[in-house]
This record gives sequence, structure tokens and C-alpha cells, in this order.
Amino acid sequence: MNKSKVVIVGTGMVGMSYAYSMVNQGTCEELVLIDLDKKRAEGEAIDLNHGLSFAPRKMKIYAGDYSDCSDAYIICITAGAIQNEGETRLDLLHKNTKIMKSIIGEIKKTGFKGILLIATNPVDIMTYVSWKLSGYDKSKVIGSGTTLDSARLRYTLGERLNVNPKDINAYVMGEHGDSQFVAWSYALCGLQPIYQIASRKDKNIDFDDLEKIEDEVRNIAYKIIDCKKSTYYGIGMALTKITKAILENENTVLTVSSYLNGEYGNEDVYIAVPSIVNKDGVREVIHLPLDATEKEKLNDSIKIMKENIKKLDL
Amino acid sequence: MNKSKVVIVGTGMVGMSYAYSMVNQGTCEELVLIDLDKKRAEGEAIDLNHGLSFAPRKMKIYAGDYSDCSDAYIICITAGAIQNEGETRLDLLHKNTKIMKSIIGEIKKTGFKGILLIATNPVDIMTYVSWKLSGYDKSKVIGSGTTLDSARLRYTLGERLNVNPKDINAYVMGEHGDSQFVAWSYALCGLQPIYQIASRKDKNIDFDDLEKIEDEVRNIAYKIIDCKKSTYYGIGMALTKITKAILENENTVLTVSSYLNGEYGNEDVYIAVPSIVNKDGVREVIHLPLDATEKEKLNDSIKIMKENIKKLDL
Amino acid sequence: MNKSKVVIVGTGMVGMSYAYSMVNQGTCEELVLIDLDKKRAEGEAIDLNHGLSFAPRKMKIYAGDYSDCSDAYIICITAGAIQNEGETRLDLLHKNTKIMKSIIGEIKKTGFKGILLIATNPVDIMTYVSWKLSGYDKSKVIGSGTTLDSARLRYTLGERLNVNPKDINAYVMGEHGDSQFVAWSYALCGLQPIYQIASRKDKNIDFDDLEKIEDEVRNIAYKIIDCKKSTYYGIGMALTKITKAILENENTVLTVSSYLNGEYGNEDVYIAVPSIVNKDGVREVIHLPLDATEKEKLNDSIKIMKENIKKLDL
Amino acid sequence: MNKSKVVIVGTGMVGMSYAYSMVNQGTCEELVLIDLDKKRAEGEAIDLNHGLSFAPRKMKIYAGDYSDCSDAYIICITAGAIQNEGETRLDLLHKNTKIMKSIIGEIKKTGFKGILLIATNPVDIMTYVSWKLSGYDKSKVIGSGTTLDSARLRYTLGERLNVNPKDINAYVMGEHGDSQFVAWSYALCGLQPIYQIASRKDKNIDFDDLEKIEDEVRNIAYKIIDCKKSTYYGIGMALTKITKAILENENTVLTVSSYLNGEYGNEDVYIAVPSIVNKDGVREVIHLPLDATEKEKLNDSIKIMKENIKKLDL
Repeated sequence: MNKSKVVIVGTGMVGMSYAYSMVNQGTCEELVLIDLDKKRAEGEAIDLNHGLSFAPRKMKIYAGDYSDCSDAYIICITAGAIQNEGETRLDLLHKNTKIMKSIIGEIKKTGFKGILLIATNPVDIMTYVSWKLSGYDKSKVIGSGTTLDSARLRYTLGERLNVNPKDINAYVMGEHGDSQFVAWSYALCGLQPIYQIASRKDKNIDFDDLEKIEDEVRNIAYKIIDCKKSTYYGIGMALTKITKAILENENTVLTVSSYLNGEYGNEDVYIAVPSIVNKDGVREVIHLPLDATEKEKLNDSIKIMKENIKKLDL
Repeated sequence: MNKSKVVIVGTGMVGMSYAYSMVNQGTCEELVLIDLDKKRAEGEAIDLNHGLSFAPRKMKIYAGDYSDCSDAYIICITAGAIQNEGETRLDLLHKNTKIMKSIIGEIKKTGFKGILLIATNPVDIMTYVSWKLSGYDKSKVIGSGTTLDSARLRYTLGERLNVNPKDINAYVMGEHGDSQFVAWSYALCGLQPIYQIASRKDKNIDFDDLEKIEDEVRNIAYKIIDCKKSTYYGIGMALTKITKAILENENTVLTVSSYLNGEYGNEDVYIAVPSIVNKDGVREVIHLPLDATEKEKLNDSIKIMKENIKKLDL
Repeated sequence: MNKSKVVIVGTGMVGMSYAYSMVNQGTCEELVLIDLDKKRAEGEAIDLNHGLSFAPRKMKIYAGDYSDCSDAYIICITAGAIQNEGETRLDLLHKNTKIMKSIIGEIKKTGFKGILLIATNPVDIMTYVSWKLSGYDKSKVIGSGTTLDSARLRYTLGERLNVNPKDINAYVMGEHGDSQFVAWSYALCGLQPIYQIASRKDKNIDFDDLEKIEDEVRNIAYKIIDCKKSTYYGIGMALTKITKAILENENTVLTVSSYLNGEYGNEDVYIAVPSIVNKDGVREVIHLPLDATEKEKLNDSIKIMKENIKKLDL
Repeated sequence: MNKSKVVIVGTGMVGMSYAYSMVNQGTCEELVLIDLDKKRAEGEAIDLNHGLSFAPRKMKIYAGDYSDCSDAYIICITAGAIQNEGETRLDLLHKNTKIMKSIIGEIKKTGFKGILLIATNPVDIMTYVSWKLSGYDKSKVIGSGTTLDSARLRYTLGERLNVNPKDINAYVMGEHGDSQFVAWSYALCGLQPIYQIASRKDKNIDFDDLEKIEDEVRNIAYKIIDCKKSTYYGIGMALTKITKAILENENTVLTVSSYLNGEYGNEDVYIAVPSIVNKDGVREVIHLPLDATEKEKLNDSIKIMKENIKKLDL
């Protein structure tokens, strides 16, 4: 395997924002773009290559095909349909499952042995689908999960408390979607529990505010879509972060979509929980004792995932 | 003035690729997005803010309006119409001149005293227009010029000679458009003049190849547009490079669009020539003795610029 | 003030490791080295300048004198005597107080209005001394405090738990010295309280280990000194981090030595407590409810500081 | 081989400045420090590790022994004696050759297959010695050569011409020592030949100045040594640059000490000439047509190397 080779399947705005972020940050040495529309992928590769003179690192970037996957360290799948008017969520699920089948089938043929990173929505289910279809090790199939939602939470809290988002330790767990929730009992600003801050009169934040912030984070994607049709820059940088955690063997805690194997009293499902990510993928799912409300929310979220998975023909 | 504040006018793909590149590289501290479609600008600002947790530097990013220009260090104008079917190039020229009039008018009202960086096409003419309308110092109005074309040339030569593009010292001069040309007599690979390399039998490049490469660079934008409708990643990173040269007072040589004041035997025109860029904008236009062919090409390019400028009502 | 100008007073190994770290990370635009031994400072400036071709950013680096302080944004004092054989700790205290008097006196003459960052040991007392002598705003005089000790704790816990030190949220508080302590009740690995981890049987860490780790962190400087005479690389990077938090207006939580003004039931003392650092210095001291043991340890540490301060003639 | 593992043999100031630079720039993933004084190496590793919380990248840093060399990608040898009073240059040569014999012997036993980077002085001869003793491929044994001298030249010219050193394309060739010379006929500022600039009346530099600058660059190390006993920061960053060129497969042009195999009419010698450096070491020696004076200077420099090599018992 080539330790520094990343393949992106799908050169839509999410895939390309991820690629462009990696070029600007110098995240890998070799970057391959695959798309059904090969011409599009070629145009994108050329456009990125022209930025290399201004990039922090030399990279090899090109439009490829599945044969380029064999020695890759990471394949990130961003391809997928979006929900059209008149279609149900279930229609979308079936459509994207079909797309994943085709992509995973192609990847398996190449003998790929690296990490599969899924960004296609609904991401928790598509990660399960990819794992099931690929037969790969559980720890080597990862979804982007709520990595972005956690970043949104940190940004929102950071703005509110006027603190660097990197000093906000707060995570969104569960589905990357409507049933997600904030693990408030573990949320900190600097060293200070957010609950402690919210209970103080001298701070400009209270428990009602926390609820509002949680709602805002859950729904902010809809707001962005209303403004600019879709969201891609935030997720692009979240994927770059996950990629660095893998390529640089960081052992970083991220709320990626991980396979539960008994943790949180559940199994046979992929869902976003804090996980330690390194060169082997998810090294460990962090099993946090949650409070009663949080437990219920996580179970609800998992239930929704499982019901959806059942409807699929895997 | 706030030394680290950048305003982008126009949140189309070029403006946003530039913004996203700066977020990924941590180029400035404060970034303001202005667009006629304020809602769009707001969506873009939110999407970028969500990436900050994964960025190398804390930034303040928001959708603003012209009042935010007063203390900015750089305003980069990327707004502009594109050529529609049935329209002539001259139609476009008039349309974008009108847009620049409106934008420059708004900026002037704010008392802005920084550097005006123009990326709207046709960039050399629009830079002239911006300078003329603003009445600002010649050295403080700069166009992106052929900064990107030079990067394309370096990438193409680097690939061909298997050398890091950063070690290729080669520049495209003249119009950012069809009349541009390569200053081959000053082009190097490492220390070695490209002409010297091309004249050697043991190297896989000859003079015919150089001509082909020059054509390829001139026309590559059309190829990208054919593949993906428009180009934006390369120019985004080129604008980031120019921005760093200014904000970090680099005294870097870039082929930005600069005002000629006697250099190259011309005046009262903006055209891409190698220029030393620092905190004051273009500190110096480098006046290179060109060979006869290059001289003629530059004069042709300048002539085209001047003829176009004459048609405008400034 | 020049937003990106840093002056270092004292070009010993600590000052120079800090300077070299900033050159490698591109932390500021202008860097001035001041030393009683002007020739030494000149040699150091030349040696650093030769690295600029390989640095991420253009910088202006030179040996200067106090007149260069007038428009600096940060002055970092690293100068100071070390404890010689036969000398008591109190002897050292008097000696370094005398040195600070001379340096602060020089700085005051220049009209400097920026942030004073103290690294001279004993750092908490020397920061108090600098504040008292300068008459500057409390928030604008900062000591490096236990920023390094906190980093040592994070590294040690990270190694033990096999997690990225950046995901360990644990802080050392109190004196940068023997009376320091770990605020274990606020220590986390990822989201998980270290106390929770230590109480689990399936983890390779227990409460005894925490005590050992705390001792190790407190005494590791002695070990390094035994191996290589003095420590400077870690503190150099800690100072760079504090510098970035200030210059880039980060609002970052750091255990710098801050002035207590009622927080933790104390006042008129500088001691390391978690503080939010931005362009104005310490924007806010974070007042954490400590448990009884921690409270006592902090009070003991403060008592020691105050007793020492009393012995000085300020 | 572990693509991102670097071993440093010798933890004196040069080796450690190189190590510290890599930690600050995030150049590799694994870093091993080897020294006869194992305790010293251990202290250094601890001191560096404490900076990791503030570094751009997670790294694994430790004091090791030769068994750690087997899967390294780069081993950099910085160990070596310095010239004592009363000793001749030849004494030093013999002493360091003996040291290299011991080190190379140890490395060979491990089955190391990577790149050997030599920084021990006299570097050109020690590189030859290392190649001869190791029996490794010519292209995989490299000396730091005049990489630093070229950087000194760029800095000095950059200061004089007020241009970013990265835009000065000028190289020092020959011995890293007194017989070195500047390849002026290939020196550029931006695109402009320095000779062209020096011949113009309107520029503040003439041919006499060039000669003075060449002398200054040749002798600046003596000045630094006079000020601060030895030089290490510049060379540390030069070694980091060479390391990046190798690990990131940059194909970068550097004046490392390369084996001549007919280039410049010479063979069986290591000397600093512009070379293309990538993952395989020196991919290609650039054979530049030099002018008569430059040719003579290079031949003189090579002659000195060969005479010295003859005196050694290899």
C-alpha cells in the first residue's frame, strides 16, 4: 500500500471541496479522482494541478479509474444521488444503496486493503451498506458521521462563549441527521463543563440556550441549503481532518460513524460515537456512560438506523 | 487599517474557491464576503465557519456589506458577468465595466485605503477600469494578471521535465487571454535555461515542444471549461498567493497585472509583467530586456488592451 | 503598534529555541533579538536568517536594542541568572529581580504598549515583579506559567492511553515549580473524565498511576537537566503557542501565569490558572470550582508565591 | 521501509536543531535520536516530546540505537569531532573518518536500505567516505553540501535587492568550505540575471558587490562562530528541506553533495552541484555548461577533495 495515496470516488461539490482542502493543506502525496463522468474528473484534476505552485506540498493529482484503487491507503466515497421532488427518503436509500453496490463491487475487484471512508448520505446507513457489501474489517470501514456536526457545535458554542472552537470539547452523537443529539454531560469549554457554565448567573448562556443551540446545529444544514443549495466546504474540511488522523496515525478522537460491537448495548449497526482514529481506522470506540436522556436518544437514533437497514436488500 | 482583514466582493465559484483556500491555509484573520445576493453570502460564510475547527488558524468570517470595507487591507473583486450566447466580447466588456463602476463607487464611499485586487475578467482591462474609477494609487490597484497562467506553465513544464513546479522559473506575460506569451528567454528549470535544455539532444524536450506547451497553457482554460463549465480552483490559490505576498510583505515576484509607467516603452495601461509585490501592492515593475519576438508580442498584447479601453466610457 | 512584531530579551537557549520555533512555524513577521552580549545576538540573528529560504514565511530578523521595543506587539523576557552552587533559591530570586528591574526600566522608557510575556524563572514571581515594576495593565503582563507543564502532562497521559496529546484535556495549575498540581477533577481523555477511566478495571490506568504521573510531570525537568543540563525545546514551543494565541487573537485556554483579582479567593498574586488568551493578553481568568484537595493545593502554592514576593524589595 | 521514519545519529547542536526544526514543521512521523551518550539522547527526546502538544503533527520521538535503523527511510549523520587547537585539518579528517567507519559499520549490520544523508564536516569528503564504506548506491548517499551556503547567498542577495530570498535563484557550488564559488552565470533575481542587474547603472549593485557578497557568504560561518561558537540553526533547516524533498518525493533542485559520474568532466568524487532530489535520493545531477572561470573553480575544488580522499585509508 502507498501510505500517502487517497482516492476520491465522486467529484461533485463534496468530493471536490475535500480534494481542494487537501491540496491547500498538503494532506497526501497522491490524489486520484474517479467519477462516472471521466471528463469532469479530468477537468477537476487539471484545475487542482494548476494550484500546486502555490501549495505547501508537491502532490500527484490525476483522474483515474478503479484500477488505481489497488494500492491506495484511503478510498473516500462521496458519490450518490440526492433526494428529488416527489421521491421519498426510502427511494433515495434504495437508489444510493444501488450506487454503493456498484462502487464497492469495483473496489473489491482491485484487492484494495486500506481504509474505506464513506461520506454519501444517509451516511450511517451507507457506511453499514459498504461494510456489509465489502466484507472488510469493521474497523476499516468508517463514515464521516457527525464529525461535521460536532464542528458546527464547537463553532456555535465558541461564538457564543467567545472562545476558540478548538478549546470547546463538545460532541454530537447519533445519526448524522434529525435524530442526532449533543452529549451535553460531556461538553466542556476549556476545562469547564458547559452544564456548570450554564448554571451560573454571571454567564450569558443558560439551559434554554443549550437546547436552542442543539436545534440550531441539527438544522443548520437546511439553512445553508436554503441559502446556497447544498453544503460542501465544512464537510470537505471534516473529511480532510479524518484523512489526516488516518494518514498521520494520530489516535484522534472523532465522532465518525463506527460499528458498534456491544458498546452502548448495541451491535450490528454503524452510528456516530466518539472513536479513536488512527492508521488502522477506528482503533477503539469510546464507550461513555451516558445519562438517561442521552441513552434514550442514542437508542432511538440506532433504532431508526436498524429499521432503515432492514428495508434494504443487502 | 486592519493588517489582516480581507474583503471579497462576489461569492461565485472564483470568490469562494479563494475564500476556502484562505481558510485552509490560514491566510488572514478576518474575512468578509459581500454579494448582491446577501443570503448566498451568508450561507457561504456559515459553511466556511464550520470548517474552522479543522483549520490551521482562528478566523473571523462573515457576510458583510460595503461598510465593512473601510478598514480592510485588501478588497478582492471577483464579481462579474460571463459571456452569454449571442453576446459579443464587447458586450461583456461594457457589462462588467458597469458592474465595476457600481462596486468601486461603493468602496470609495467607505474611505478604504488598502490594496484593490481585481480578478474579474477581462482582468487587465477591469484592473485599468478600477484604477481609473477609484483614483487610487497605481501601485495599490493590482490585477491577478497571468499569475495563474504562469502557474499552469510551471506545472506543465514540471510534469514534462519531472521537476518540482516550484523549481521551474518561467513566466507568462501580457494579456490574461489569447495574446499572452511565454518569456522563454528568461525561463529556467532549476538553474538551467529552458532554451539550453531544449537545444540538447539528450533531453526529451525540443523547441517544437515549447511552442506546443505555450499553446497548451494559453488554451487550457477552454479545456477545463469544456470539462467542468468553468475554472476556479487554480485561480483561487493564485489569489491566495497574491494575498500572502501582500499581507506578509513578501517582496515576491509575480506576474500580476501592473500599471506601466514607461516600462517596456509603454504607459497608461495595465498588463501582466513580472512585478515585486509587498505590503504596498506593486513595489516595482521589473523591466526586463526582451528579445525582438517577445517585445513584439508584448506590444501586440498592450495594443489590444488599449483598443478595448478606448471603447469604454470611463 | 506593529501587530506582528516580537522582541525577545535574552538569547540563551530558551530565548533562541523560542525564536527558532517561530522561524520554523512562521509565527510573526518581525523578530528582534536583544541581549547584553550584542555580538551573541547578532550571531544568532544571522544563523536564523540563513534558514529563511526554508521557512514557511518571510520574516525580518535582527539583533536590536531597547529602542526597537516601542512599536512591538509582544516582548518576551527570557533573560535571567540560574542557580549556582552554594546559592540559595532566595539569592536567585534577588538576582533575577535585579535583572528584571533593569530590563523593565529600559522597556518603559520606549513607550511600549503591547503584551509583556515573562519566561524567566521563578516565572510566577518574576511575572508579578514585571507587572509591579512596569505599572502595565494586569491583563497585559503574562507569565508562561504551567503552559509547558500542562503539555508535559498531556504528552505523558497521551502515551499512556495511546491517544493524541491534543485530545487530552488536562491541566497543571499553581506554581511552575514544586507546589504545582494537576486539576484531575477536570482532566479528560477525549470526552471521558480521567477519573472515570481510572476507576474502570478494563483500562490500564488507575488512581495510583495518576499520582505517579503527576509526580513525573512535576519532576521531569530535573530528569532532563540531569541528561542535558537544561530544558529549552519544550518551553520554546510553549512560548510560540502563547505568542500565536495573542497575535492571532485566538481566545485560547492556556495555563499561563495570570493575575488573580478575587478569582479562587485570592488577589495580588500571579499564578498559573486556566486563562483565555487573545490579542489583549489574558481576556479572562477561568474561575473553576475546585474540589477540596485541589483548593488546598492551589492555596498552598499561592502562599509560597506571596511569601517570596514579600522578601523582595519592589 | 517506513516511509516517514528518520534517524539522526549525533545529538549535538546540529543534529538537535535539525530535529527541532522537523518537530516544528511536522516533517516526519517517526524520529529516532542516536548518540554515544544515550542519556543525552534520552533527555533530548523528552524535551522534544513536550513540544508535541504545540506541533502541527503527531510524531513518535525517542532515543534509540542502531537496531532502529533497519526500516528507516533516512539516516542523517551529524556526529563528528571538531578541530581542536593544535590539530591540523588532516588530523580532523582522520578522526572523523574513524567515527564514520564505526557508524557506517553499525548501520550496515541492520540491513538499512534507505537514504544516507551526511552532515558531518568536511561534508563532501565524509559523504565520499560514507559511500565508499557502505557500498550503497551512489544516488542514495547524499551530503548536505552547499545547500546552506546557497541559502546564505539567497538571503544576502535578497536583503541587498529587497526581494524575497525564495525569488532569488542563485547557487553556491563546489566544496562546502573555502574553495566554494557562486555560479553567477546562472544567478537570477526573479527572472532577471544578476549579471544583467549588476551591469545596470540604476541598480544599487555592481560586479564588485557580487565579489564581496561571494566572499561574505564563504566566510559568514567564521563570523557566526566568532559570535556564538558554532552554527546550527541554518544547517538544521537546510537538513529539514533536504528531508522533505526526499520524503515528499519533491524532485527539488538542491546543491547537495552528489557523486560525479562523468558530469563536469569528473568522476569518483562527491561535490556540491545542483541535483534533483526525490524519494530515491539524487535522481539526477544537473550538468550545467559553466563559463571558463567557474569551470576552473569547480575543478580546483574537486582537486582538493580528491587529494584529501587519497590521504585516507578507506
